Amino acid sequence: MSRSFLNRETQLCMSLSGRPSNIGTRFHNYLYDELDINFVYKAFTTTDLPAAIAGIRALGIRGCAVSMPFKEEVIASVDVMHDSANAIESVNTIVNENGVLHAYNTDYQAVANLLQSSGFSSDWSVAVTGSGGMAKAVVAALRDSGFTRGTVVARNPQTGPTLASAYGYDHSNESVAADLLVNVTPVGMAGGPDADLSPFTDAQIESARAVFDVVAMPSETPLIVRARAAGKPVVTGAEVIALQAAEQFVLYTGVRPTDEQIRRASEFSRR
Amino acid sequence: MSRSFLNRETQLCMSLSGRPSNIGTRFHNYLYDELDINFVYKAFTTTDLPAAIAGIRALGIRGCAVSMPFKEEVIASVDVMHDSANAIESVNTIVNENGVLHAYNTDYQAVANLLQSSGFSSDWSVAVTGSGGMAKAVVAALRDSGFTRGTVVARNPQTGPTLASAYGYDHSNESVAADLLVNVTPVGMAGGPDADLSPFTDAQIESARAVFDVVAMPSETPLIVRARAAGKPVVTGAEVIALQAAEQFVLYTGVRPTDEQIRRASEFSRR
Repeated sequence: MSRSFLNRETQLCMSLSGRPSNIGTRFHNYLYDELDINFVYKAFTTTDLPAAIAGIRALGIRGCAVSMPFKEEVIASVDVMHDSANAIESVNTIVNENGVLHAYNTDYQAVANLLQSSGFSSDWSVAVTGSGGMAKAVVAALRDSGFTRGTVVARNPQTGPTLASAYGYDHSNESVAADLLVNVTPVGMAGGPDADLSPFTDAQIESARAVFDVVAMPSETPLIVRARAAGKPVVTGAEVIALQAAEQFVLYTGVRPTDEQIRRASEFSRR
Repeated sequence: MSRSFLNRETQLCMSLSGRPSNIGTRFHNYLYDELDINFVYKAFTTTDLPAAIAGIRALGIRGCAVSMPFKEEVIASVDVMHDSANAIESVNTIVNENGVLHAYNTDYQAVANLLQSSGFSSDWSVAVTGSGGMAKAVVAALRDSGFTRGTVVARNPQTGPTLASAYGYDHSNESVAADLLVNVTPVGMAGGPDADLSPFTDAQIESARAVFDVVAMPSETPLIVRARAAGKPVVTGAEVIALQAAEQFVLYTGVRPTDEQIRRASEFSRR
């Protein structure tokens, strides 16, 4: 029987998002099975975020992934903001330590870790499309990784210039050339209105040194496909989402999976 | 893999009690497996009942079993009290219908159903030991099943007489003879201080027509063992707990298991 592992010791981890997907549920439950850890993971949504978070505290739910549109609103309901969440005033992970809710942002950590392991030079110029919560995590991670020469590409007349100036980057309404091209918009996302488009031109891709796309579904976005065809090193959104989920997994369970286990969990989660 | 059934459609049911056991978790998860229903069940405790109940509403948790010591305190947090809960001002089941929390008492229902199917005559006299929340459910079910001649046996000088007079029963500090002997105290419960004792004397058992014990662990309490030895028909606590859990199962899922499925789930839950 599949549910016979469940007993009174089983700990629950969960997600809160406006539109739950299956990715986190499948990623975490795959690793609980693989590592024989007595946890179970389930996705939720809510129309009452403060009560949902208070319920996590009152029920002793061990951890919660926080996604759009709750990442900023949730700050008012947690108890301890850790550096990764404070750096960008955005929370994507809550860990419940005996009723005290600790807040982190593993998106920021994952992007910073991927920049470190990529071998990209922080002397490079950067162009980042987007100005939402995830763009803030990416720009902060770039800036904190030493990338001082950057441009935020965003049409939004409020959030674009605000994000750029907060981190000492330029702002542009149109995509620009740079050594490192980073997409943090939904352009290229499956099922979205711009699924077939690239946020950078072929000429910009050709003149770049590397490409980083945060879109995770599909991992082979039009931008990534073109960058690979042009022989450029890439970082995909599938890597970001797997690495940030792996960091959540460590925070919740205290167990660090191997890279190979993370790779397999990620593959399973995307099926 | 055991957890691969979990996806974003999976519904959560749960329990809240001061000291969670494995019985409900195993009973419900067994039937979810057996009937291929996309639910999962987990036991919780809490030190903040109002926040826990508000969390059930905010997270869309489908159902919650409520055990000691929360059955009366929880009334203030639910939205609709149904007859079974109103009858005894005690809730053991919450069903979340789109954010509206409906409260029931399936202990009361289960005892009433077992009295009906037992063939015991309501002309019989009854002696009921105990005066707690479950005793209230049992006395109310007896009274509503037509048993008008009864004695509440309880040493507690407040709750004993109060319960007796609320239902028109006599009160006694010491166990008394009756046609139907009913135990609703922890006497005979495994691990308790009175595990080896019977709440009724051998002479009282001998002169009775039938015996009903609410203690579920073990189902073969000293009282039940002696009653069987004396050739008396019995109803065990294992039957009560299985039937009340089955009624919860129907309320949560809309699916009624067969008697054979309930029997197997009950057996699995007690292993």
